[in-house]
Amino acid sequence: MPMNPQELTSLLRDVAAGNISCETAQAALAGSENKDLTLDTWRQERTNVGEVVYGQGKTLEQIRASLAELGRHHPVLATKLSAAHGQKLKTLFPNGCLWEEARLFCLGADLLAADPKAPDSEVLIVTAGSSDLPVAREALGTARFLGLGAHLVTDVGVAGLHRLDPHLPSLRQARVIIAVAGMEGALPSVLGGLLKAPIIAVPTSTGYGANFAGLTPLLAMLNSCAPGVGVVNIDNGFGAAVLAKKILARQE
Amino acid sequence: MPMNPQELTSLLRDVAAGNISCETAQAALAGSENKDLTLDTWRQERTNVGEVVYGQGKTLEQIRASLAELGRHHPVLATKLSAAHGQKLKTLFPNGCLWEEARLFCLGADLLAADPKAPDSEVLIVTAGSSDLPVAREALGTARFLGLGAHLVTDVGVAGLHRLDPHLPSLRQARVIIAVAGMEGALPSVLGGLLKAPIIAVPTSTGYGANFAGLTPLLAMLNSCAPGVGVVNIDNGFGAAVLAKKILARQE
Amino acid sequence: MPMNPQELTSLLRDVAAGNISCETAQAALAGSENKDLTLDTWRQERTNVGEVVYGQGKTLEQIRASLAELGRHHPVLATKLSAAHGQKLKTLFPNGCLWEEARLFCLGADLLAADPKAPDSEVLIVTAGSSDLPVAREALGTARFLGLGAHLVTDVGVAGLHRLDPHLPSLRQARVIIAVAGMEGALPSVLGGLLKAPIIAVPTSTGYGANFAGLTPLLAMLNSCAPGVGVVNIDNGFGAAVLAKKILARQE
Amino acid sequence: MPMNPQELTSLLRDVAAGNISCETAQAALAGSENKDLTLDTWRQERTNVGEVVYGQGKTLEQIRASLAELGRHHPVLATKLSAAHGQKLKTLFPNGCLWEEARLFCLGADLLAADPKAPDSEVLIVTAGSSDLPVAREALGTARFLGLGAHLVTDVGVAGLHRLDPHLPSLRQARVIIAVAGMEGALPSVLGGLLKAPIIAVPTSTGYGANFAGLTPLLAMLNSCAPGVGVVNIDNGFGAAVLAKKILARQE
Amino acid sequence: MPMNPQELTSLLRDVAAGNISCETAQAALAGSENKDLTLDTWRQERTNVGEVVYGQGKTLEQIRASLAELGRHHPVLATKLSAAHGQKLKTLFPNGCLWEEARLFCLGADLLAADPKAPDSEVLIVTAGSSDLPVAREALGTARFLGLGAHLVTDVGVAGLHRLDPHLPSLRQARVIIAVAGMEGALPSVLGGLLKAPIIAVPTSTGYGANFAGLTPLLAMLNSCAPGVGVVNIDNGFGAAVLAKKILARQE
Amino acid sequence: MPMNPQELTSLLRDVAAGNISCETAQAALAGSENKDLTLDTWRQERTNVGEVVYGQGKTLEQIRASLAELGRHHPVLATKLSAAHGQKLKTLFPNGCLWEEARLFCLGADLLAADPKAPDSEVLIVTAGSSDLPVAREALGTARFLGLGAHLVTDVGVAGLHRLDPHLPSLRQARVIIAVAGMEGALPSVLGGLLKAPIIAVPTSTGYGANFAGLTPLLAMLNSCAPGVGVVNIDNGFGAAVLAKKILARQE
Amino acid sequence: MPMNPQELTSLLRDVAAGNISCETAQAALAGSENKDLTLDTWRQERTNVGEVVYGQGKTLEQIRASLAELGRHHPVLATKLSAAHGQKLKTLFPNGCLWEEARLFCLGADLLAADPKAPDSEVLIVTAGSSDLPVAREALGTARFLGLGAHLVTDVGVAGLHRLDPHLPSLRQARVIIAVAGMEGALPSVLGGLLKAPIIAVPTSTGYGANFAGLTPLLAMLNSCAPGVGVVNIDNGFGAAVLAKKILARQE
Amino acid sequence: MPMNPQELTSLLRDVAAGNISCETAQAALAGSENKDLTLDTWRQERTNVGEVVYGQGKTLEQIRASLAELGRHHPVLATKLSAAHGQKLKTLFPNGCLWEEARLFCLGADLLAADPKAPDSEVLIVTAGSSDLPVAREALGTARFLGLGAHLVTDVGVAGLHRLDPHLPSLRQARVIIAVAGMEGALPSVLGGLLKAPIIAVPTSTGYGANFAGLTPLLAMLNSCAPGVGVVNIDNGFGAAVLAKKILARQE
Repeated sequence: MPMNPQELTSLLRDVAAGNISCETAQAALAGSENKDLTLDTWRQERTNVGEVVYGQGKTLEQIRASLAELGRHHPVLATKLSAAHGQKLKTLFPNGCLWEEARLFCLGADLLAADPKAPDSEVLIVTAGSSDLPVAREALGTARFLGLGAHLVTDVGVAGLHRLDPHLPSLRQARVIIAVAGMEGALPSVLGGLLKAPIIAVPTSTGYGANFAGLTPLLAMLNSCAPGVGVVNIDNGFGAAVLAKKILARQE
Repeated sequence: MPMNPQELTSLLRDVAAGNISCETAQAALAGSENKDLTLDTWRQERTNVGEVVYGQGKTLEQIRASLAELGRHHPVLATKLSAAHGQKLKTLFPNGCLWEEARLFCLGADLLAADPKAPDSEVLIVTAGSSDLPVAREALGTARFLGLGAHLVTDVGVAGLHRLDPHLPSLRQARVIIAVAGMEGALPSVLGGLLKAPIIAVPTSTGYGANFAGLTPLLAMLNSCAPGVGVVNIDNGFGAAVLAKKILARQE
Repeated sequence: MPMNPQELTSLLRDVAAGNISCETAQAALAGSENKDLTLDTWRQERTNVGEVVYGQGKTLEQIRASLAELGRHHPVLATKLSAAHGQKLKTLFPNGCLWEEARLFCLGADLLAADPKAPDSEVLIVTAGSSDLPVAREALGTARFLGLGAHLVTDVGVAGLHRLDPHLPSLRQARVIIAVAGMEGALPSVLGGLLKAPIIAVPTSTGYGANFAGLTPLLAMLNSCAPGVGVVNIDNGFGAAVLAKKILARQE
Repeated sequence: MPMNPQELTSLLRDVAAGNISCETAQAALAGSENKDLTLDTWRQERTNVGEVVYGQGKTLEQIRASLAELGRHHPVLATKLSAAHGQKLKTLFPNGCLWEEARLFCLGADLLAADPKAPDSEVLIVTAGSSDLPVAREALGTARFLGLGAHLVTDVGVAGLHRLDPHLPSLRQARVIIAVAGMEGALPSVLGGLLKAPIIAVPTSTGYGANFAGLTPLLAMLNSCAPGVGVVNIDNGFGAAVLAKKILARQE
Repeated sequence: MPMNPQELTSLLRDVAAGNISCETAQAALAGSENKDLTLDTWRQERTNVGEVVYGQGKTLEQIRASLAELGRHHPVLATKLSAAHGQKLKTLFPNGCLWEEARLFCLGADLLAADPKAPDSEVLIVTAGSSDLPVAREALGTARFLGLGAHLVTDVGVAGLHRLDPHLPSLRQARVIIAVAGMEGALPSVLGGLLKAPIIAVPTSTGYGANFAGLTPLLAMLNSCAPGVGVVNIDNGFGAAVLAKKILARQE
Repeated sequence: MPMNPQELTSLLRDVAAGNISCETAQAALAGSENKDLTLDTWRQERTNVGEVVYGQGKTLEQIRASLAELGRHHPVLATKLSAAHGQKLKTLFPNGCLWEEARLFCLGADLLAADPKAPDSEVLIVTAGSSDLPVAREALGTARFLGLGAHLVTDVGVAGLHRLDPHLPSLRQARVIIAVAGMEGALPSVLGGLLKAPIIAVPTSTGYGANFAGLTPLLAMLNSCAPGVGVVNIDNGFGAAVLAKKILARQE
Repeated sequence: MPMNPQELTSLLRDVAAGNISCETAQAALAGSENKDLTLDTWRQERTNVGEVVYGQGKTLEQIRASLAELGRHHPVLATKLSAAHGQKLKTLFPNGCLWEEARLFCLGADLLAADPKAPDSEVLIVTAGSSDLPVAREALGTARFLGLGAHLVTDVGVAGLHRLDPHLPSLRQARVIIAVAGMEGALPSVLGGLLKAPIIAVPTSTGYGANFAGLTPLLAMLNSCAPGVGVVNIDNGFGAAVLAKKILARQE
Repeated sequence: MPMNPQELTSLLRDVAAGNISCETAQAALAGSENKDLTLDTWRQERTNVGEVVYGQGKTLEQIRASLAELGRHHPVLATKLSAAHGQKLKTLFPNGCLWEEARLFCLGADLLAADPKAPDSEVLIVTAGSSDLPVAREALGTARFLGLGAHLVTDVGVAGLHRLDPHLPSLRQARVIIAVAGMEGALPSVLGGLLKAPIIAVPTSTGYGANFAGLTPLLAMLNSCAPGVGVVNIDNGFGAAVLAKKILARQE
């Protein structure tokens, strides 16, 4: 357990007072040295986002144990859950919140609560087609878990740009846009040319053939002719929401 | 030399008339057998487009000889010329037409003559940025060489969609659209969602980093969420114009 | 709902007549501004092809709902259906037409009706081997859905070119050729050197090893030495038929 | 020229007053329809960042003309300039500011002015090795051009993490971090685990062999185990600075 | 049905004799033109190898029908069969020969008959590990089907070169070597440096991780420092045996 | 069976003594010629590591037979076993040791025995997340099988560097480090910059999207900015342990 | 120097006769053990093809020294020479034969001597376009160097199949076909479907864009639907000729 | 400046003695916290290898400055130098040692001094062809710079395995083998099957076509069927020598 400033002060006072020997103090300090990186705080305080349980490729028991451990002190989220694991977690933690379509489960937060300001949320998640919905929902649920006001707009693809129309006011007032797209991944370019807000682009593995499981929209988003687009990994709705959290936390 | 129908009729009449022996006729026919694939016509008549001199990686002498040979009977085009070869061809064939920016040279046609119907041409070539101009001009010059009415619209990128506006009437009346784009290659998707005409998409090697010399727009165009887009090779403005020619020739 | 010219004229007359106030008119116009992209028409009228339900990765309920909604006013097609979804859709919409081998289902059209002009159809779909049949049938069914006269010629591979022979008359009169091929994807090159019609090339994921799930024929088709070939995504028989529709619609 | 609300009000009043006919009004409105996307504002006002001249692959004349045109009304930047073009632009625009190492040139701004708050700038650009400096400087110069307070910290690689130490206070107070790295691209992961600020990761083409010209750090950054990292294209220091601008502009 | 030389002679004689008119002769010739490529022979006579049924991705009925049709006149082989299809074919054609491990089935030949000259066969198939056996057996069974004397030597990997020792006499007398290898695919290089015979290299998809399903041995074999190695597709034991057949048929 | 020096001496003495004829001796020597590569020793003596049964893609019977054969004289290990095969091997060889999570089974050794010197083992296996555990355990079990003192440290990722802290003493005294990591694969770079010991890097296929099944950490590890890192194949915990064995065996 | 059977017999007789001690004999045998792989013959006798000087990336002095050394006893060939190195080698070895277009130089053979049997040579090299000529000539020159009768047929592409016609007799009598092709690489498939001879396919790096420097024809050739095609590395005309030599040498 | 244990003891004693106040001590400790990672030692002491100047892509001035700075206290090496930079460094530092063929320059060590124990050096560098020499020499020079006894054996390729023969004694006694190979990269597999020592594999970019600038040998080495091979980046002779240093330093 690292030493916080109060403890250090107390230790030094004890040395000065002769309550403890130099050797004892040195040993205690040795045990606590190099502790700035460890910090006597949690990851959440260091990086604005606490540790999360990545569910893919893990056993149910691994996920359960991590949730139980991390969830003792603050809310905790598990991502990329299989349908079976999701159901079983709901049984194991009846108070937990399961969002199957988003492959998310959490303790201590409500993944499904709509933003009261919607559709004029601070985070607007925009997606082209229903195939992209699981990833978009992962972003939405994570954003809610992180305490952000977020809203999801679907079916806004570049092959039917007029569908953007009714959403332009919401898009213009949002403070962060998360654009989720598969296929050719052109949505962030179009949005980037229209809006002031920073755009977080999430390629999805939707598509077939020369889509190469999301490689095409990933490359397209990285090459966007509209600058000001930050890209995250394919299908990484979670990461997009975390980046949004970090952007907005800075503004507070 | 293959035999055309007239020659076949004449030969058979000679056999019937006893003017030539069966053996002679058989030998003549043997020489001409399998000739449908050869045809007694030229490539141009078979495929609507005559043979063209692909200039990349060839010596000046190879290009010169091909131009001289093919140019004896009808107009002929050379593509992908280096600047040096282009200049020297102009000296060797003073009557030829050189378009340096398009890397084209031809005999018997005018690569630079504007379409009198422009901007309402039957073929509209649309491009996003000035970096794509050499490829777009290759398409334009080839289209002119093939006798098509073609017009080039530049600077219409998806990051500034409003620039499409003044061109919508021309775009709507065009019979074929050639969309030339590098970067993320989203232009054909946007056009494909707006227009009735078939769209020929030409990815260009414009870009850097994860563009991978045109791979990104190539993949994006193949994955366009707007169906009805046919893609040609990276930087292949020539092929796009030939496809336009074949589409329009069918309509005559 | 956007405003069409008649409605605009009517509105202005009402303003001029004092029937409605400037404020009311301004609000109505604001509601209809930017509406050219939205248009007071449907996607079908804008692009010649109506919206289609892409079935891959969707739930049965998502597909059913889209079909029911889109099918209220005009025929509607669903593509890339799993066998199970196909069967269930047939039960849900007894009047619908299911083509299992093509993974297609539609309402309001007959996917299986032979072209009365066959084999001399305006669209000729040519394929090399029986492994390519599902994709070729997707193209055929889509073409029929779009009202095109289409006919399928199978087993015409480049390793047995003589098999092309009996089909040459049909190939020569067709207005669009759709060439479907896996393996090395050479069929479009051979056809492109023989025929006047534009060729739409569809690579398929047939093959193994260094075929890389269709990457090989895709690259081969993009590099065809016969110009005038437009390529669509791997296994995208649907897109090929749409492009054929757009080419032919232009000719009417 | 599109119509703004005042003009629309004025027009309608003229119609109501009978000053102009319905036909005239209708024509004026037709000319201004769909104008929201065009806007009567500039790109800068729409997206927070004005148009920039991308210099790669362009002729000197193309760059010069764009600078002259765009620079008439507000500052303008050119990026990815060759050394030769940079020198000549300095001659053509003696008042312009050239930063050779960053391959930047601009009119109307000072690319070289240090941030008075440095090293505690709002944007901290961190880089591992001297090979990454050109890209890091492109980010720095662009940030200055955009009016951001930015500072560059060099030689902070993951193989010598202790070098981070003296910079931790600056890193902790920065509002946006731009991490520029080639080789294995691990810097954003390390920073992402330590800091609250959003991290913009810029892979560089520094490296050789299996680095594949930046592909390795690009993939590594996309797969960062520290969430909250947004990635831009390889060598895209410009885009990183634009994203920083959009993030910070939101906070104002 | 194309016309053979005897028929042509007969036709011309009839024309010369006035037995048939020129028009009739012309029509008959037109019907038979281009027939060299069709030939009045079978594929087997044209290319030394008859048509084979590629079983992957086909339905049982497709395979059955092809076998029944092709098997009427001469032996026929089906390759890449699933275990289930293999078993059912054995039931449908009780006289057929099934080799499950090789995924082969044939009519009219014995896939399992050992070469009486073994181990000194004209074709020696060499393989490194037991994981490569299915592909090596496909080569062996195909070679037997094609009438070649073939023998399989297993467990000769480059990490234990001494195992080559007892096989050197057989290797030295063989007329064609087929080297089947996964992993790093070095076997053909070692054999190519030791032997006079041409070496046909077959990469297999054995391996994991950076093997990339056979890409590694494929590339290695193409880059063999021992010249005289011809490579076939990954897992293509069939193609290797066909190439051996063509090499040896030439020698007869 | 090759001849060892004692046997050779004995043979020559028999020849000298006339006990055996020259012909007999020559035949015996011929049988043993070229035997240096074969050696009169086993692979284990030649390379420090005996033959191992690679279980992937093999039938249970193949694995069983190899284990039985190789296990007659010394301990033997099987790797990459499916869960089903592992269970059945345990039944077939009740004295064998099965480690399911590591996909290992062995005869004649204990895969699960902790190192008495742990955590200060000569080989320290370090891993970032629980998803990497199967590969890390393959390394640990193999190291134990090879007689090395090995210890596994988990959950040391670059996004939480402070977790390295308590392990630094163990890391500093270890003679070989095996770093197992998926995602962006940055762990070896960080360790390489801190430690004197050689580092064996094992990329894992943990991750999704642009991880490309381990390609990302593989490339990152090859490009490590900390020199002194040797990389093995993706998921190849076995190979890492063998390399550790070879490094340490040299030191004895 | 290894020991041949006669020497072994002699040695053993000396031991039997007491002429030499057992120790001496043992030492002599030790010196000669493992010698089968070394052989007392040359590479040419072992593999039918002598050592060749690969010129790419070597200094003139390295090439000169190798030629001088290898050329002492038999003819020697250098490949992939730069134009400058070729010219200088001609000066250094005035009796040598330089073929600039093929990037070949040799001592002791005539690279330019036409085959007296041409066009009916035993090896027929077929190529599509003039861009492929350097590689085709490398194959031709190497074949001549190896003593094969070889002839080159150019301009036979799949987009103009009728051009094959006049060459069919030569193609049918050839014993080995070398097909050199860039672009989509379809030539070997077409030839493989027409001819009995084994076909050696040489992909070339001719092409641009999605050709990827020869990757496209390489993949296409490996996936040829006509079996019996052996593929060599991109641009490897030399290797193709060596394989032809090995195929034909077997037949003598 | 971090605090070492003596200083800490001294500080605590001063606190205990009342020589300094608690506040002063606390400030001093705060200034020295987190200092284990910084260490009061140099990189060389931490990792066995000091900082090295990577020369590629740097200006002469950057390299010169780094050499001058780092060379003040101990020997320093620069790698991957251009020929021009190498020459100029020799002029700037007349006492430095330049090895042009290895692209190395160093101060304070002799890159060219042969190992007195050669050919029986502790590090044996083995390479196949003269094209691999620059990389092999980089490894050799770096090993010498690091104080290792190293020797280079050339021209040992897998296509002529007998050439290994005379080197087997040296290979068997070496403590580390560095195998440098391009083309198909099979050398480490062959060596790994013969020898006890750990093998460091260095792929080189030697080769052409499907070699893909070293990708082929890189993949082959990672897939070596002989376990116990550690791979470094393409052309990374430097890294291989550093790994050898770390392996051997552990043994001292």
